[in-house]
Amino acid sequence: MDQRVSVITLGVADLGRAREFYQALGWRQGNDEADDVAFFQAGGMVFALWDRAMLAEDSAVSDAGGWGGVTLAHNAGSAEAVDKIINEARAAGAVIGREPARTFWGGYSGVFIDPDGHPWEVAHNPGWTLRADGTIGLGTG
Amino acid sequence: MDQRVSVITLGVADLGRAREFYQALGWRQGNDEADDVAFFQAGGMVFALWDRAMLAEDSAVSDAGGWGGVTLAHNAGSAEAVDKIINEARAAGAVIGREPARTFWGGYSGVFIDPDGHPWEVAHNPGWTLRADGTIGLGTG
Repeated sequence: MDQRVSVITLGVADLGRAREFYQALGWRQGNDEADDVAFFQAGGMVFALWDRAMLAEDSAVSDAGGWGGVTLAHNAGSAEAVDKIINEARAAGAVIGREPARTFWGGYSGVFIDPDGHPWEVAHNPGWTLRADGTIGLGTG
Repeated sequence: MDQRVSVITLGVADLGRAREFYQALGWRQGNDEADDVAFFQAGGMVFALWDRAMLAEDSAVSDAGGWGGVTLAHNAGSAEAVDKIINEARAAGAVIGREPARTFWGGYSGVFIDPDGHPWEVAHNPGWTLRADGTIGLGTG
């Protein structure tokens, strides 16, 4: 199994509401909006929104409700960029779980929670390499 | 907010056990194994394993336990490659949630569940483009 992730799918209660939230952050859906799943090309991978009950069934799991141990992060090039994105999320209706601040690991981050309760950390990590194309590398090499 | 995901962190109960599982699939950790978080360079993003209670606190969410509405997928170049990866996961101790088979969307996939209950769909999607570098694109263009 190659060391990579191809798709992240978030289960949502209302596809239209979830799509509008990500669109308000500037994201653009890559497939037909009439489809019952929304795909967003996210760099070299795909980010998807799908009905949570259907996702649970398709994933062969029981849905515990609430958060289940997965957090996404979006890295930005500076503390100022983190502040800007957290404010965009706030304007789009997200709950801000943690206002941006310096972190114990030497970076700067905040957390927003999307309309379905999925948390996103928005972080600036000076110990990693964030390239112009948005890809990220461990270390500063 | 650029349309991309930088990091996926899975909350785990036992970091050593989780690391061993992903290592058994052939993945190699990119940071010091003495650290309390394991980072894996996964193409242009980072895949991480961290204590689930610490992740919940850091993510400003309450932990409902169990699955919480996020499923990852790993796309492969053929149905045979899907079978091979599902069998690797089985050999590494994963529960197979769904044995590989043709899907309603015209592809072929199976699901394995990692030791912490996180599901991975392993899929071949003839309608998407899987490039030699492991990146994936919506559509066949």
